[in-house]
Amino acid sequence: MNHQSYLNKAFILAKMASPKQVRPNPLVGAIVVDKNEEILGEGYHQLCGGPHAEVFAIQAALKKTTDLSETTLYVTLEPCSHHGKTPPCVELIIQHKIGRVVIGSVDPNPIVSGIELLTKSGVEVVLMPLPIIEQMNAVFMTNQLKKRPFIQLKIASTIDGKISDQLGASKWITNQKSRTFVHEVLRENTDAILTTAKTVIIDRATLDIRKENQPAKELNTIIIDRTGELLKSENQQLPIFYKRKLSKIYLLTDTSQISHQYTLPSHTEIIDVRFDHQHMLQLDGLGEKLMEKGIHHIMTEAGSVLNSFLIDNNWADEMYCFIAPLLLIDDKSKSMLHTQKVVTLDKAHKLTLIETQIFDGDVLLRYSFGASVVS
Amino acid sequence: MNHQSYLNKAFILAKMASPKQVRPNPLVGAIVVDKNEEILGEGYHQLCGGPHAEVFAIQAALKKTTDLSETTLYVTLEPCSHHGKTPPCVELIIQHKIGRVVIGSVDPNPIVSGIELLTKSGVEVVLMPLPIIEQMNAVFMTNQLKKRPFIQLKIASTIDGKISDQLGASKWITNQKSRTFVHEVLRENTDAILTTAKTVIIDRATLDIRKENQPAKELNTIIIDRTGELLKSENQQLPIFYKRKLSKIYLLTDTSQISHQYTLPSHTEIIDVRFDHQHMLQLDGLGEKLMEKGIHHIMTEAGSVLNSFLIDNNWADEMYCFIAPLLLIDDKSKSMLHTQKVVTLDKAHKLTLIETQIFDGDVLLRYSFGASVVS
Repeated sequence: MNHQSYLNKAFILAKMASPKQVRPNPLVGAIVVDKNEEILGEGYHQLCGGPHAEVFAIQAALKKTTDLSETTLYVTLEPCSHHGKTPPCVELIIQHKIGRVVIGSVDPNPIVSGIELLTKSGVEVVLMPLPIIEQMNAVFMTNQLKKRPFIQLKIASTIDGKISDQLGASKWITNQKSRTFVHEVLRENTDAILTTAKTVIIDRATLDIRKENQPAKELNTIIIDRTGELLKSENQQLPIFYKRKLSKIYLLTDTSQISHQYTLPSHTEIIDVRFDHQHMLQLDGLGEKLMEKGIHHIMTEAGSVLNSFLIDNNWADEMYCFIAPLLLIDDKSKSMLHTQKVVTLDKAHKLTLIETQIFDGDVLLRYSFGASVVS
Repeated sequence: MNHQSYLNKAFILAKMASPKQVRPNPLVGAIVVDKNEEILGEGYHQLCGGPHAEVFAIQAALKKTTDLSETTLYVTLEPCSHHGKTPPCVELIIQHKIGRVVIGSVDPNPIVSGIELLTKSGVEVVLMPLPIIEQMNAVFMTNQLKKRPFIQLKIASTIDGKISDQLGASKWITNQKSRTFVHEVLRENTDAILTTAKTVIIDRATLDIRKENQPAKELNTIIIDRTGELLKSENQQLPIFYKRKLSKIYLLTDTSQISHQYTLPSHTEIIDVRFDHQHMLQLDGLGEKLMEKGIHHIMTEAGSVLNSFLIDNNWADEMYCFIAPLLLIDDKSKSMLHTQKVVTLDKAHKLTLIETQIFDGDVLLRYSFGASVVS
């Protein structure tokens, strides 16, 4: 087996963890292999705060032999060099005199300098960045590099790119199988839904997670609500204010614009933000605020205005397009995205197709914005 | 093996022919199997005017045994019962006393009553219509049932359903690999391109078939040109009037609306048609006229007006959507389809997804209009 094969095995190990349980940490897998190509130890990062993948793999290897000098450690991410919730893995590697470390992706965190420290200590380092390994930690990379949650747009449209007819009807464009995937996979794996007060009021949305034969599961919701519309007493009966135990509603509100008396509903928190003269949300600093609240991954459930705004402001990382086998054709039906800006074809946003799936007649196209998360 | 497996084998045989060489006939495959499940003969319809699939299969079987009474003939289409270019296959089946015939699709042609005649003659008939077999002859079925060519719309759009930016630029939305497929597969398999004078003038299109390292191949072109704009002398130098030997340009023109003198260019023919007060082409009788000229399959290369018109008038059978990984977002960019009609979601055109392909980052979604070609 070659380096890439072992890294792929480490990648499969890494994927055994639940991304949501590991966040804000990345998924990491590690394997210790001896010179006879026998795998001595394996491990993956299972839980935020728990041991790193390297620790599991090295401890398992030590049960088979105390001399690791002629072994290779394959690890999907550059080993940490700083004291976080656990001691640095670099020290462990050096302490056990592991001969070689093959690394599948670089940690963008500037306080991590694992490669440098290992090299200085005489450990042979082979850096072999693999796109699937980098893609696996797109959320972590975005959090680190862009100082904001990873943002996934979710759009359900007709073949001709329409999200509702001219009367505003959009239920249900996509089929049951697509909607099941949205709940069981997409909503399940996100930290919060991002939407607008308008959507929550008009659609009477709960934005929770529904699975067949199971009680609905709570999900954090972030709602752009400039003037605190949802705080009005007549809106307190909206389905979004269902009884919460584990989740929160975050209102992105300009508190100076609230002109009515209100009592903050339980499990609801206001994040005080500003809007520009066109009533567009100012994003500066918001990313950090959300991450401090444990929100590292966001999915939108909203109309074309919010999704277009996020794309325009470089706040979109992935797009899930569910295309139903329908044509609306009607000029006045609503397009999935729109802005007043002139965009010529040569200036069009260029995305990267990363996945396709078919749900009966619906097609899911998953795109990443930009060529690579670590470009 | 069961009936379906043999029909599937016959289906694979049928597909060995080139649809274009067989037209206006359907693709047909046939197999003769004896009671020990030995295949005695196989055949497929190779060429319009040539022997039918049943003839090849039965002749091959007769070389192995003269007694076909305990054999089963598997044939993908109901055997013909009329004297066309060849004698009726039903007679051949009865003459050789074939015991059983298993049929994979019914011939919609009212002069074909193969099933009835076979049954009356004491041949056991098993009718087992299979969707893939019916789909294979969608063109033939449409020709027979709708008395017009089969019409394939071809659309290249961004993810948000735009076919050009607000300046009209549409070259090139899709990538080289998609365009190669359009030439080598789609244009190669159609009898004619349908477009408009406007497209031919603005895009300076040749609409021929280009394959790498090969000379361009001619292709019939049907151009909607109400007032005979292309007949003006200043338009005679357009690329569409390239020197033709094997193909023709058909102008769909209202000859009473031509207000200028003209000489008909070589390989150009006017089909005299009428338009309504909104300048929309009247389709009555046009289908038969085109089929008389040997055009049984048409692909559009045109803008949103023509494609929307065809859909609106039930003259669209399939749609090939090439979706490039681009977003235009701009409100004023051009949508793939549009009409002034109010279409509510419950009245949206419902299509059937029949194929998906990926060409690098482009996605091809192929849809059929309506649930089934023979519904």
